[in-house]
Amino acid sequence: MRSEPIGSGARPELLTRIDDLVEELQPRLVEWRRDLHAHPEPSRAEHRTTSRIRGVLESLGLEARSLEVPTGLYADVLPDGSRRVPRIGLRADIDALSLVDQKDVPYRSTHTGVAHACGHDVHTAVLLGAAEVLVRLREQGLLNRGVRLLFQPAEETSPGGALDMVAQGLLGDLREVYALHCDPRTEVGRVAIRTGAITSACDRFQVTFSGPGGHSSRPHLSADLVMAIGAVITEVPTLLSRRIDPRVGASMVWGQVQAGNAPNAIPASGQLSGTLRCLQLEGWQRARDLVPQLIEQVAAPYGVSVQVDRSTGIPPTVNHAAAAGRLAEVCSAVLGPDSLADTEQSLGGEDFSEMVLAVPGALGRLGVRPVGSADWPDLHRPGFDVDEACLGVGVRVLSGLVALRPDPGPRRRSQAA
Amino acid sequence: MRSEPIGSGARPELLTRIDDLVEELQPRLVEWRRDLHAHPEPSRAEHRTTSRIRGVLESLGLEARSLEVPTGLYADVLPDGSRRVPRIGLRADIDALSLVDQKDVPYRSTHTGVAHACGHDVHTAVLLGAAEVLVRLREQGLLNRGVRLLFQPAEETSPGGALDMVAQGLLGDLREVYALHCDPRTEVGRVAIRTGAITSACDRFQVTFSGPGGHSSRPHLSADLVMAIGAVITEVPTLLSRRIDPRVGASMVWGQVQAGNAPNAIPASGQLSGTLRCLQLEGWQRARDLVPQLIEQVAAPYGVSVQVDRSTGIPPTVNHAAAAGRLAEVCSAVLGPDSLADTEQSLGGEDFSEMVLAVPGALGRLGVRPVGSADWPDLHRPGFDVDEACLGVGVRVLSGLVALRPDPGPRRRSQAA
Repeated sequence: MRSEPIGSGARPELLTRIDDLVEELQPRLVEWRRDLHAHPEPSRAEHRTTSRIRGVLESLGLEARSLEVPTGLYADVLPDGSRRVPRIGLRADIDALSLVDQKDVPYRSTHTGVAHACGHDVHTAVLLGAAEVLVRLREQGLLNRGVRLLFQPAEETSPGGALDMVAQGLLGDLREVYALHCDPRTEVGRVAIRTGAITSACDRFQVTFSGPGGHSSRPHLSADLVMAIGAVITEVPTLLSRRIDPRVGASMVWGQVQAGNAPNAIPASGQLSGTLRCLQLEGWQRARDLVPQLIEQVAAPYGVSVQVDRSTGIPPTVNHAAAAGRLAEVCSAVLGPDSLADTEQSLGGEDFSEMVLAVPGALGRLGVRPVGSADWPDLHRPGFDVDEACLGVGVRVLSGLVALRPDPGPRRRSQAA
Repeated sequence: MRSEPIGSGARPELLTRIDDLVEELQPRLVEWRRDLHAHPEPSRAEHRTTSRIRGVLESLGLEARSLEVPTGLYADVLPDGSRRVPRIGLRADIDALSLVDQKDVPYRSTHTGVAHACGHDVHTAVLLGAAEVLVRLREQGLLNRGVRLLFQPAEETSPGGALDMVAQGLLGDLREVYALHCDPRTEVGRVAIRTGAITSACDRFQVTFSGPGGHSSRPHLSADLVMAIGAVITEVPTLLSRRIDPRVGASMVWGQVQAGNAPNAIPASGQLSGTLRCLQLEGWQRARDLVPQLIEQVAAPYGVSVQVDRSTGIPPTVNHAAAAGRLAEVCSAVLGPDSLADTEQSLGGEDFSEMVLAVPGALGRLGVRPVGSADWPDLHRPGFDVDEACLGVGVRVLSGLVALRPDPGPRRRSQAA
């Protein structure tokens, strides 16, 4: 990827135009976001969400295109008269989480047990807003780059929707790709940026234990299935700490365990599931291959058999240096130089990683915490919410990533063909 | 307790009379047992069972007396003209287990999820049969001891029905107390006897874990509840092996574990339950007091809090030497000298232990395995069944324990007052 400097004072009339458009948009951004928030849908079931996005895009005169999977969609906004201009991808994930919304707000989830507790409602509304801004700029002849709006389904599951979009070839003709993700650790108005890995590799493991079952008075005539589960819970993370380079940062955390229904009966089956996270692409494959082997070895001496199912896995999101630099320049231009914040690599998984493996790009963290508030609910918590001023901030940044470019000129345009 | 020798050749006419009565009874023993087997009821819900027992006892002209708890009952059979003769207790437990009957037989359980998989249907039918034999012997002037028929509810739970019967004073005026328990390891026609401890102490522990919950990418910002459960599962049994005298034979086995519902969320609560069994009365109290302390100490470094609920607990059943000797003599007399088998102390719990703590007595193991069969389903297994020839064997033994006594004579009778 080639870095195109903006120049801090460049095109002030364009910045003002974007600001004006976003200010007009703000009530609709809130309306879109609250409508999505009140009607969250889990991964691969985002039917209403997809339909709403399609409605907004079509009202802008855009052609909303379906994916090869049932939910999600995409649309291109191209400068008039050209289908061959360099194209930039902007991605929003659209699915929600299976948890109970515990907020007491008018836009609280109306779908029991499903909640937008990871901010994908915000991501979607922001990308819809950017679509509108870019369409308006194009009407005024102010758009000199093409953009692909990627409304991705199923980020919260594995294999996720990013892989579907890559497999469909939607990244193949992009020069760059960007995404923003809500960040409750960063104040609204700021964007946190990092070069290199910003999220981590994540695999889900589901272990099924089987034994003969029996009575708790005769463990020697059975196989102590609960003890085998206990050993796997405690020993596999310990063994990983000695078999994998500590710099890989392998972290195995179990989230769910279930076996038996009486204190005095040894159960015949049980379930254990958890996640393995790694900081580095290097070492990740070795760690994820080692886990099933360690589980089998730990369970074997108890006479308990195991079946280990591993998810497809998500690599770390590694922000390309030039793309992260571009994102920082744009934030500085549209939000001011104080808007930039540093951020740590999280151990969370994010399948935008698949997109930046396909095309240079970067993920930024969009501040959503009200200015001055101390304890703000974290992502994936039942009370998660945002300061809705973040919506306009996000639209400014995504629009700027496309609009704040020097005119590529006729030579470059033919090059891009 | 005073041992009254039978003398091997003593009272052959009485043995013949008992044999004749049992032979007549056999079809009804099978009928009673199959009716109970098809209508099993869990602990403290043995209403139909209690009603059926009452019906049989009243048809024999006995006064069936209710307990101070809703289910179970008892009745006395006394030699004519005396309410002060030495009295012997015979006990049957009447409740069933919460498991699915997987047998394909006409008398299979008709109550879904409840099954007589511990043979209490047999115990009950045998004691009803003994009641009839003893009533018939009394009619013929052949009964010179009183007997209390103890139909005990709720053996399979804790606190169990034996404690209720002791608390009600039903053991206070007994000289001795006996019980038989089905034993699939012993062939039908034989009875296995042991002096000293024959079952073990048993406590049930239920542990509730609590923590803040969180995301599996941030264990350091939460408390890893599943890891704490794993540590308790594996470490508490290990710690017991170093803190309790190995001769106590403390055995902690977990039967049930449950926490969380997603691989990537650290749960805020969880449950673990299991049993502690000990071979000896001595050391048992120390072990059962130590377990909650060890659980708290193991969970503490994870920042997870625990609440430990311990059941009332059942002591080991310690057979008194004289009573076990009496049981052996009677078996030898009514079944022949080859009928006696040795048996090991089991790690199972049996609340008849509370009765032999109150009154000298013994528990015998009634062979129920068909002669010559190798693999017979164990107690508490969904396919458990018996060779119904065991019913008559049990009636012979229980009847003999009361009937095969020398006449106490007028001096002893007044002594007993």
